[in-house]
Amino acid sequence: MSRKGMFISLEGIEGAGKSTHMPALVDLLESHKIPCLATREPGGTELGERVREVLLSKTQAPASVEAELLLIFAARAEHVHTRIKPALEAGSWVLTDRFLDASFAYQGAGQGLGVDRVEQLAQWLLPDLRPDLVIVLDTSVETALERVQRRGQKKDRYEENDLEFFTRARQYYLDQAISQPDRYRVVDAERPVDEVHSELLEILRGLI
Amino acid sequence: MSRKGMFISLEGIEGAGKSTHMPALVDLLESHKIPCLATREPGGTELGERVREVLLSKTQAPASVEAELLLIFAARAEHVHTRIKPALEAGSWVLTDRFLDASFAYQGAGQGLGVDRVEQLAQWLLPDLRPDLVIVLDTSVETALERVQRRGQKKDRYEENDLEFFTRARQYYLDQAISQPDRYRVVDAERPVDEVHSELLEILRGLI
Repeated sequence: MSRKGMFISLEGIEGAGKSTHMPALVDLLESHKIPCLATREPGGTELGERVREVLLSKTQAPASVEAELLLIFAARAEHVHTRIKPALEAGSWVLTDRFLDASFAYQGAGQGLGVDRVEQLAQWLLPDLRPDLVIVLDTSVETALERVQRRGQKKDRYEENDLEFFTRARQYYLDQAISQPDRYRVVDAERPVDEVHSELLEILRGLI
Repeated sequence: MSRKGMFISLEGIEGAGKSTHMPALVDLLESHKIPCLATREPGGTELGERVREVLLSKTQAPASVEAELLLIFAARAEHVHTRIKPALEAGSWVLTDRFLDASFAYQGAGQGLGVDRVEQLAQWLLPDLRPDLVIVLDTSVETALERVQRRGQKKDRYEENDLEFFTRARQYYLDQAISQPDRYRVVDAERPVDEVHSELLEILRGLI
């Protein structure tokens, strides 16, 4: 695959603020006339949105973490094949709210399937496609859970996970950032939204 | 997993007669007071039936064979975890209309993904579970396609495949039967239904 655009995923546990900050990142790229696909996982395609519904629901969710991960990878296959690869090949940037790292953090670390088993599926599907940059919005688990609580809406299945789950997921992201500092950037998202916002834009400007 | 019951899958290309013969096999086991789970793939669970709908549809089907296979394996994970393993562990027999071999035959051989890549997923999900016996209902591709045609109903996405696809899928089953004669039994399903029926019952009686 010949590529010109950057492939960036925005990661972090529930309540870290990913969806708050996505629009401004897209706006910045647009203001520089950089073509950009803004997308999300699970989702990003019709099949992906169906899978998202199943996964977030408390009554239809799969009974095992293996089934859950295979569903997520099915949606990811569709997402990569029909949207991400074509966009990158056309020279667009791709900004995605979650990608592969979320599977490592949530199913691998959080749910305890193990990072190795997630890596086997990643190798099977995507031997040659990883984000150029993973931006991790980092908050303490307590802050994240408080923010989810404050939203006031009904929690989805992932948001209902406990402190230990989110602690393991958060730790996965932080460990990656230490072992691969060139590819991961941790942004302290405990700070006020405008400070986080400024740092994100600065990171992005550095790449343009 | 400690197991007492036999695990049998019935395989064959479209029109080979699997669904025609399943009920009599179940009846035979019941008449011997053998507890039996009769099931099918894709399907067999709520999640599986949703996946089945997506796969058979011509408008919602995934865009790549990888996504298709991952969906099938997600449904299979659910099927194995919630129905097949519990049944086998309780001492039941399990009779399934298609299982893993259908993925080798259809996605691996038929659609050309390659049998090795299917085997990698099979190892990932099911390192320790394969059917004790695979019964292959074998017909020429011409006969199979004629039978599908004669049903008169609208063809699903798989039934719309061409002669070459079904030739490759059939060949996969026949090759397996040659390389693993203890675990595969080929039944000539070109013959009249009652002859096929008798041979199937005989095979099953030999196992009881």
